[in-house]
Amino acid sequence: MAVNSPLPVAADLKPVAGIRLGHAEAGIRKANRKDVLVMELAPTATVSGVFTTNRFCAAPVQVCKAHLEGLHMSSGPIRALVVNTGNANAGTGDAGLAAANKTCSALADLLGCEAAQILPFSTGVILEPLPVDRLIAGLPQAITNLKEDNWFLAAESIMTTDTQPKAASATVQVGSHTVTMTGISKGAGMIKPNMATMLGYLAMDAKVAQPVLDHLIKQAADKSFNCITIDGDTSTNDSFILIATGVGSLEVNDIDTPEYAILAKAVIDLSQKLAHMIIRDGEGATKFISIAVEQGRDLDECRKIAYSIAHSPLVKTAFFASDPNLGRILAAIGYAGVNDLDVSKLDLYLDDVLVAKNGGRNPEYREEDGQRVMKQSEITIRVKLGRGDVETTVWTCDLSHDYVTINADYRS
Amino acid sequence: MAVNSPLPVAADLKPVAGIRLGHAEAGIRKANRKDVLVMELAPTATVSGVFTTNRFCAAPVQVCKAHLEGLHMSSGPIRALVVNTGNANAGTGDAGLAAANKTCSALADLLGCEAAQILPFSTGVILEPLPVDRLIAGLPQAITNLKEDNWFLAAESIMTTDTQPKAASATVQVGSHTVTMTGISKGAGMIKPNMATMLGYLAMDAKVAQPVLDHLIKQAADKSFNCITIDGDTSTNDSFILIATGVGSLEVNDIDTPEYAILAKAVIDLSQKLAHMIIRDGEGATKFISIAVEQGRDLDECRKIAYSIAHSPLVKTAFFASDPNLGRILAAIGYAGVNDLDVSKLDLYLDDVLVAKNGGRNPEYREEDGQRVMKQSEITIRVKLGRGDVETTVWTCDLSHDYVTINADYRS
Repeated sequence: MAVNSPLPVAADLKPVAGIRLGHAEAGIRKANRKDVLVMELAPTATVSGVFTTNRFCAAPVQVCKAHLEGLHMSSGPIRALVVNTGNANAGTGDAGLAAANKTCSALADLLGCEAAQILPFSTGVILEPLPVDRLIAGLPQAITNLKEDNWFLAAESIMTTDTQPKAASATVQVGSHTVTMTGISKGAGMIKPNMATMLGYLAMDAKVAQPVLDHLIKQAADKSFNCITIDGDTSTNDSFILIATGVGSLEVNDIDTPEYAILAKAVIDLSQKLAHMIIRDGEGATKFISIAVEQGRDLDECRKIAYSIAHSPLVKTAFFASDPNLGRILAAIGYAGVNDLDVSKLDLYLDDVLVAKNGGRNPEYREEDGQRVMKQSEITIRVKLGRGDVETTVWTCDLSHDYVTINADYRS
Repeated sequence: MAVNSPLPVAADLKPVAGIRLGHAEAGIRKANRKDVLVMELAPTATVSGVFTTNRFCAAPVQVCKAHLEGLHMSSGPIRALVVNTGNANAGTGDAGLAAANKTCSALADLLGCEAAQILPFSTGVILEPLPVDRLIAGLPQAITNLKEDNWFLAAESIMTTDTQPKAASATVQVGSHTVTMTGISKGAGMIKPNMATMLGYLAMDAKVAQPVLDHLIKQAADKSFNCITIDGDTSTNDSFILIATGVGSLEVNDIDTPEYAILAKAVIDLSQKLAHMIIRDGEGATKFISIAVEQGRDLDECRKIAYSIAHSPLVKTAFFASDPNLGRILAAIGYAGVNDLDVSKLDLYLDDVLVAKNGGRNPEYREEDGQRVMKQSEITIRVKLGRGDVETTVWTCDLSHDYVTINADYRS
């Protein structure tokens, strides 16, 4: 069960003018499962994407990048996205690339556009050939299902080991314009996005110039999907896509405007919400843990320390057990790779409880106080480095028996 | 149960002339448990140590370093080592440092030497005050127990979550001289040594000049304890100590000699054996996994990739399940941080089975072959990078339910 993350309500997910969504059951890996999603965009839409930095980046990621680069060249706007689950089409070499391209061509034929105007995405098992014929055979069904009011089923269609769909909406008032935005995400394991996350799609009905959208997606990713981790495994298929359908009345052509600032905040907030949903539904997660590293010299050292804590199996199992074995956090800070760290300046808090002071146990720290916080389902670890004024926050979950069960059973 | 690692037989562990070992039950954390070990050295002994790089390095580690540095200055030779389990004396600030120094003084008084001639070690829970009075009260009992033929009980005395003691002996013929060496180690979790490991002690009866011993310990650590990982957590207390008692007939004063080469090989082999024992007894381990990365450009990239595989919770749970979900290995290679890696040159083997060829699935790979190897308790993952001639091997274990159970229960 996801941690404090109620199931999204279909009726709460707002249609975004200029994007229609349709799902299909194509039998990619298993029968009778929604496993294909098509998102069709208005011709006015601008689209930006950020992708995994994994060197084994999947074939569809390579095709997406090429097609988005084409945007800046001669080809027409992106007209549709197609996602399949059940197979990642990664580690599949030239055959995988051909399969991704074939999918784009097939969908382009059905929609009457060019293959370069399609973005393909895959998620699932790595190193297995994509059953591209079954995928293509499912496309007409997805197109039949296309409608604006289909975000809930769309979120369901991209799930793998997720226990529940992840989706959220927001509206933001920018001057006289009301902007509607809805996003979906998926992912529960192999989560340590690096530039982007498993799969995340966020659409809004504003008209946003391409360079502005390209700037915004990086801002949003860096404050959301790039700050979460479940198991430290950066996927081969991470993708986060931001869509401005251009159908609404707001138009943003410049980042140095009050309109951009308001819109950007709303996009970042919604991206963060979608990213948190991934952690709350982390494989086997029983706790949602925020790790704030403050008073650092630069962002790099703050992130190193936050991720070192977030990835430590010993820290994560202690949280699972609600055991305030907090020396494990100090050990993780100590091996984070900040080689000139002076631990005698460091303070460690668990929520409001000062556990370690000047690098040693706080004489006033009482085990009962640590125990009280550890029993909560939402916990903040706060590390004050005492050497600068930079801070960052990373979100993660605990490591439970269910993580092992899920990942020992996922494929078999 | 440790993986293919039979319990050492006390009678097989050879006494090393010039070192006597004595244990005590001091009630450091729990009653009726061997938790203190004293090792007394001949005045002719030379001693070298390598220690954790964790910035939160424990108080005893700081004292050890200072006393070993003193060796090169004016103070006399190291006369004894004292180890306690049940408490790491780490994250304990100035009080922890005072406790470590007090321990050295107390033992020095009992043995009639200076505090600077004692090396202290602690292992156990971090962030809790060392019960130094109980430790000191246990020293006379340890001294009463001192004898050369006590390696098995010594190995038992330094255990924490280890399921069995770790010890091994060897003799090596160097010209007309027979050198006897015996070592012990401990550690089962918080294992990703960086310069050294949890606790490892190796003594031999040769006479080895200090600079030669300092050189040898780095060679041995880099090929043994520095190549193992269980959970990626570098401890605050890692220490590996090499002792040459100087009582035997062999004398080595120069590394550019055939004698050094023969002795070094024997020390490295025994260090590797002791390091492997730690992995075989890794918390919850059911498999012993060797990860060989070959054809790299430099050692750094080979190690990055090997550790990336070795630390991936997804890879480790797949091995636990004997599930050949081998795309997870490709993903771990891809995010290892070798940014110019050309995956189209990469081959992946599981033992003798070629799984991926030129970065994609080997067309001739059959799932049954992968399955066959995955079921074994000893497995080699071999990655050929196709970009150089450097290679390295790292050893690890799988991630099982028992790892979670042990670490969720360790302290409580």
